[in-house]
Amino acid sequence: MRSGKNQISVTQYPSNFYAGPGKLPDSVLNRIRDELVDYRGTGLSVMEISHRAEPVIDLIERTGEKLRSLMGLAGDDAVLFLQGGGSLQFLMVPMNLSAPAERVDYVDTGYWAAKAIDAARWLGRDVHVAARDHGAIPGELDIRPDARYLHLCTNNTVAGTQWRQIPSSPVPLVADMSSDILSRSIDHSRFGLIYAHAQKTIGVAGVTVVILPRTTLETMQQELPPFFDYRTHAEAASNYHTPPVFAIYVVECMLDWIEEEVGGLQALEMQNNRKAAMLYETLDASQLFRCPVPSSSRSRMNAVFEAVDQTVEPFFCREAETAGLLGLEGHRSRGGFRASIYNAVTLEDVERLCGFIADFERRHG
Amino acid sequence: MRSGKNQISVTQYPSNFYAGPGKLPDSVLNRIRDELVDYRGTGLSVMEISHRAEPVIDLIERTGEKLRSLMGLAGDDAVLFLQGGGSLQFLMVPMNLSAPAERVDYVDTGYWAAKAIDAARWLGRDVHVAARDHGAIPGELDIRPDARYLHLCTNNTVAGTQWRQIPSSPVPLVADMSSDILSRSIDHSRFGLIYAHAQKTIGVAGVTVVILPRTTLETMQQELPPFFDYRTHAEAASNYHTPPVFAIYVVECMLDWIEEEVGGLQALEMQNNRKAAMLYETLDASQLFRCPVPSSSRSRMNAVFEAVDQTVEPFFCREAETAGLLGLEGHRSRGGFRASIYNAVTLEDVERLCGFIADFERRHG
Repeated sequence: MRSGKNQISVTQYPSNFYAGPGKLPDSVLNRIRDELVDYRGTGLSVMEISHRAEPVIDLIERTGEKLRSLMGLAGDDAVLFLQGGGSLQFLMVPMNLSAPAERVDYVDTGYWAAKAIDAARWLGRDVHVAARDHGAIPGELDIRPDARYLHLCTNNTVAGTQWRQIPSSPVPLVADMSSDILSRSIDHSRFGLIYAHAQKTIGVAGVTVVILPRTTLETMQQELPPFFDYRTHAEAASNYHTPPVFAIYVVECMLDWIEEEVGGLQALEMQNNRKAAMLYETLDASQLFRCPVPSSSRSRMNAVFEAVDQTVEPFFCREAETAGLLGLEGHRSRGGFRASIYNAVTLEDVERLCGFIADFERRHG
Repeated sequence: MRSGKNQISVTQYPSNFYAGPGKLPDSVLNRIRDELVDYRGTGLSVMEISHRAEPVIDLIERTGEKLRSLMGLAGDDAVLFLQGGGSLQFLMVPMNLSAPAERVDYVDTGYWAAKAIDAARWLGRDVHVAARDHGAIPGELDIRPDARYLHLCTNNTVAGTQWRQIPSSPVPLVADMSSDILSRSIDHSRFGLIYAHAQKTIGVAGVTVVILPRTTLETMQQELPPFFDYRTHAEAASNYHTPPVFAIYVVECMLDWIEEEVGGLQALEMQNNRKAAMLYETLDASQLFRCPVPSSSRSRMNAVFEAVDQTVEPFFCREAETAGLLGLEGHRSRGGFRASIYNAVTLEDVERLCGFIADFERRHG
């Protein structure tokens, strides 16, 4: 339960299925609120402390350490906390890992993967699409053996698809994990670079995590303005310019929640799988709704669905909102519906949604 | 007084002179805390709401409107809320307002102005330094009449200098106001572009305000990746990609504070002038400390000073910290001392500092 002045009763309490920024756990919000005017006994808010002062330097170091620990990363992997979202990483990845006209390979699995491809093309890279499928995760990849890297988006929020297995690749794998980082226990050591904005699974909008193994850092050789150069931020421990301190603090709160309340990444994965299984079962059992994504490609973060009888479509989101279920519109590029069930969405939220779907079907089916 | 669970007594209460991120007003922190788990009756934290949902779209529009109103800007001036700090603007300004090899003029008044110059050089612009002085605001400027713009930094946090008068220029003026935006009432219509990160005078780290008059937007013609193009963000009303929602919300809280509690920009300027006058009087009267900046160039945001007898230097910050006065170290590039007295620093904070300086002098003078 969320505590404090403006406490909300359980019946009014909305279930948040926004695609991002999305729900934060109650206990994380309560903690942020309780610590807001006095961060760790400093007498200051974490928002007011200089980024050159010890409490903030410690915060950044500790948060990186906790992230490495939860993800099973090597101690010398660089963990950067940057601004600019996934959109800036679409540019910084090709800038740092390749020269103009060099070969870079991408898998086009949806709206955001395609944006990453556009950015690499803007920068004049020789872009090759190793596979393209916006409806399912592709099986075969046509990877050029001399490409600088293969870029993939591990979870596709608009298409509702997710890579269950990380594909093998003869070239370094670069992953956009913006919508499923720290939602499951996978072998993170297989990636040459991982990036993810925080606002879906590990925090709020305004900070983007970039993970660079030492070997990747050591092979970079582009001459770039320092702001665009990963090496600048790695050498400065994310303090080259003023980092988004508050957003980093929220990431630490989320990592603590995963470790201390959920019980670690494997426990969180089980919880996420249970939520997804319950929702897809409801959709598969429905006569009125259907999920267009084949079972083996379905995302455990974003369940995309549509009404078989399109005349009921206009009623669904409106009635859901009245019932306290928020954010069920599909992405504006494709319509339909989408329930985003990120880390902080509870089993109770999903139960409530499944109950609403069944009830809606009784009334409109 | 800061209210809430971890309430702090007045004697423990630190005075925050950090150069940025810096102090926030007590009432702003209390408001953020009170609204944290329920933003405007939504039942959600402002951090959890999709950037495509009405409450966030309204927040961005309203905050831009309040900023325009306080600064006396035209209704069709674009106000953007971006990520990446001043450092990304050092790059985006030349990218958007000039082509490679074109002429761009800069005034070099300190550490950060010099960083802006470096960025324009990195991008291959023909950079000319119209004047250089890290100790005082220059009188004469040698501006090329065919330069694309003249860039200046209105307040220099490291040098402790500030432009009292905005200079006249035959080419469009571009201003980095990161350390004095909304600290005084000036004619903002004289600028072709204004940018400022929020963490010193109007909020927290993670959001940067960019103000673009319609005429500037209309004359831009560079072909850029959309993320780097001001027109992208202007057309999307700062919603091209996920904006830093929480940091924008804090800006709104600060603007409300200026308007409703302080009484507007002129009242805030008077308050800031009083604080600065009190501090500089104390320094000028001191036998032990001195401010190296000539009176007409002194910043009303950052008072830079040094000890005449350098043997006492190591004691000053340590004793100040023990007395609850934080952040008085000079910038690492020049040493000495610096008191940053941004908008939220109170007259009482400055009185306390002046009292401490006088007391320190009695003990060590």
